[in-house]
Amino acid sequence: VSNVFALAEYQSRLQNVRAQMERAGLDFLLLCDPANMNYLTGYEGWSFYVPQCVAVSIDGDSLPIWIGRQMDAAQAPLTSWLPSEQVIGYPEIYVQASDKHPMQWIASYLASRGWDAKRVGVEMDTYYFSPKALAALQAGLPNARWLDADLLVNWVRAVKSEAELGYMRNAARLAGHVMQTALDVIRPGVRQCDTVASIVAAQIGGDESFSGDLPALPPIVMSGRAGSAPHPTWTNEFFQKDETTALELGAACHRYNAGLARTLHLGEPPTRLLHTASVVEEGMEAALAAMKPGVAAGEVEAAWRRVLDRHGLQKDSRIGYAIGLGYPPDWGEHTVSLRAGERTLLLANMTLHLMLGMWLENWGMEMSETVRITDSGAECLTSFPRGVHRGS
Amino acid sequence: VSNVFALAEYQSRLQNVRAQMERAGLDFLLLCDPANMNYLTGYEGWSFYVPQCVAVSIDGDSLPIWIGRQMDAAQAPLTSWLPSEQVIGYPEIYVQASDKHPMQWIASYLASRGWDAKRVGVEMDTYYFSPKALAALQAGLPNARWLDADLLVNWVRAVKSEAELGYMRNAARLAGHVMQTALDVIRPGVRQCDTVASIVAAQIGGDESFSGDLPALPPIVMSGRAGSAPHPTWTNEFFQKDETTALELGAACHRYNAGLARTLHLGEPPTRLLHTASVVEEGMEAALAAMKPGVAAGEVEAAWRRVLDRHGLQKDSRIGYAIGLGYPPDWGEHTVSLRAGERTLLLANMTLHLMLGMWLENWGMEMSETVRITDSGAECLTSFPRGVHRGS
Repeated sequence: VSNVFALAEYQSRLQNVRAQMERAGLDFLLLCDPANMNYLTGYEGWSFYVPQCVAVSIDGDSLPIWIGRQMDAAQAPLTSWLPSEQVIGYPEIYVQASDKHPMQWIASYLASRGWDAKRVGVEMDTYYFSPKALAALQAGLPNARWLDADLLVNWVRAVKSEAELGYMRNAARLAGHVMQTALDVIRPGVRQCDTVASIVAAQIGGDESFSGDLPALPPIVMSGRAGSAPHPTWTNEFFQKDETTALELGAACHRYNAGLARTLHLGEPPTRLLHTASVVEEGMEAALAAMKPGVAAGEVEAAWRRVLDRHGLQKDSRIGYAIGLGYPPDWGEHTVSLRAGERTLLLANMTLHLMLGMWLENWGMEMSETVRITDSGAECLTSFPRGVHRGS
Repeated sequence: VSNVFALAEYQSRLQNVRAQMERAGLDFLLLCDPANMNYLTGYEGWSFYVPQCVAVSIDGDSLPIWIGRQMDAAQAPLTSWLPSEQVIGYPEIYVQASDKHPMQWIASYLASRGWDAKRVGVEMDTYYFSPKALAALQAGLPNARWLDADLLVNWVRAVKSEAELGYMRNAARLAGHVMQTALDVIRPGVRQCDTVASIVAAQIGGDESFSGDLPALPPIVMSGRAGSAPHPTWTNEFFQKDETTALELGAACHRYNAGLARTLHLGEPPTRLLHTASVVEEGMEAALAAMKPGVAAGEVEAAWRRVLDRHGLQKDSRIGYAIGLGYPPDWGEHTVSLRAGERTLLLANMTLHLMLGMWLENWGMEMSETVRITDSGAECLTSFPRGVHRGS
């Protein structure tokens, strides 16, 4: 039994997914994205490194089926609302074997449940569904028609419920605590890895009322020269005086992620940093002011870009994306991107990571907020002073 | 410039991979597994949530090419030995866009480098290479012949160099410190999440001489009822008196992982636990005694199973697997499995996680070692008392 969301919420999610299946002309849907599996069933566990899926029929009287490794099937009753007869384990001999694939077993099981000669949607561009997995399904269900249902559930997830927003608020509040932890710890002579140890301990410790998850994106610490690239791994180097560090941190509660980026300078910040940060802050306010239901994602980026143009700065990459339920390696939901020309309309209760990263020649800075679209504008779920933070 | 391994080591890896390409009849190899990309180029960063690859030609005079997102290309010169002309970025508009895919751009780039009408190996069953990515490559290089080169590089990685073993030893030593941290912290009334916060802080902090990475597998804490399933996520529940907790922990140095599992009981351990643990320890000694170069993986499992049979215990799943270089979600290298009937022969300097997990009705226990195959036997890289640990 899941205690994360009420049963009625899972039922409503299933109904919304079936409506999209209907629109896409699907009889069945096979989900391998662990976030989508969790969304529909509540299933939680670190078992997505072997093939597993949730199978959904368009038949409104049926329940989803969880299919995974035999040893992980024991985890389903502990986390999911699915009754035990909907939990199916495949034999251990299929795990990472050179002569067989778990999807062969799964295809054969699905055939026995009537999936052949039907229109089946699969996620053609998700992390945990490989070309070999698809080929095994196709061989085992030779009469099925395979359709790309990539992001079908992600788009249903785009608008968050009140209960989901509660976990997003937890994560956003925790993200502020995590950022403060980082700022408290970083000073000249401290190693990056010791700082990240404190950061991750704060992420996992959660607060008095909840446990923190590892966010789907690990802490990103861009210090000195590493500030010119956005996704470095921490090292055992020391923070230096007169060095700028951009921090992309965040937190997660029940796999709901909030991102938060800020920039710290150890010593007196140079003019170029203060100038860039003030333009970015003005751009963030412009982007936030442009956000409301019915506005296209590209218009938000345009509002930001007008500020940058006025100050002669440039940023080629997108300035944000949908954020929420997510497992490693990405907390982005792969639906909305805040990018030039994007025509997706924002809707109330979408949640976005407005992520303003300036990765320049040999240095960088960042400022971000996790934002909810309200009925008439945008609300920052994260709350932390935006200017350049100064350490010594 | 990479400072993790000497240039000569990367060159030797490349030579070994080309020898396997030759055997498989490949003109080109396209690698998307971040561990394999790292292995050949040194490239390190959390950018594998978008499509990226390392392209290798059989031509021994050529160098590998790193191709990834434009913003991440800046990370390559900071971590890889590849000269800058071998680092290619694709435009930001390809990132998570509904109307285009990065592999379209990459296919077109590879076509310009002569990859069409050739025999190209790709990893058909890796996490970060999707059916849609394959289809985009096939459409953009219509005359290429696509062959499955899954695990080709993983098998080259199976035998570790002295330098790699140095990082494995670091990770294994750190894993012992991490386990001690967990045992020091767990007691009745402490929350799981606060324990995991301490565990992960110890993992990342490394030691005086190196930085720890997040291991590719997060800490697994199997407490009480959750002990019956092997991959639960921690919660904010309290540890209880008279409760058994199995801990599958580990550590990583430069992405080289070592695993270590032990079992703790808060209070006087019940007879069934002590009995099972003593059988498992005897089975571990039998498995270790069976390990040496030239022995089939299945024979190691048979040695273990003979002990279990004698005591009337049973375990259906494999008892170990190759471990080493790995990114989330798995520290296993997907090559050797210690499993009934496996005929792969062990070789000197293979590293394995001998993982004895007993997940029974409503409780579980675990004991593991990270092991190196020596010239004549097996050496435990991890070192920690094996019996049931007692807390109060």
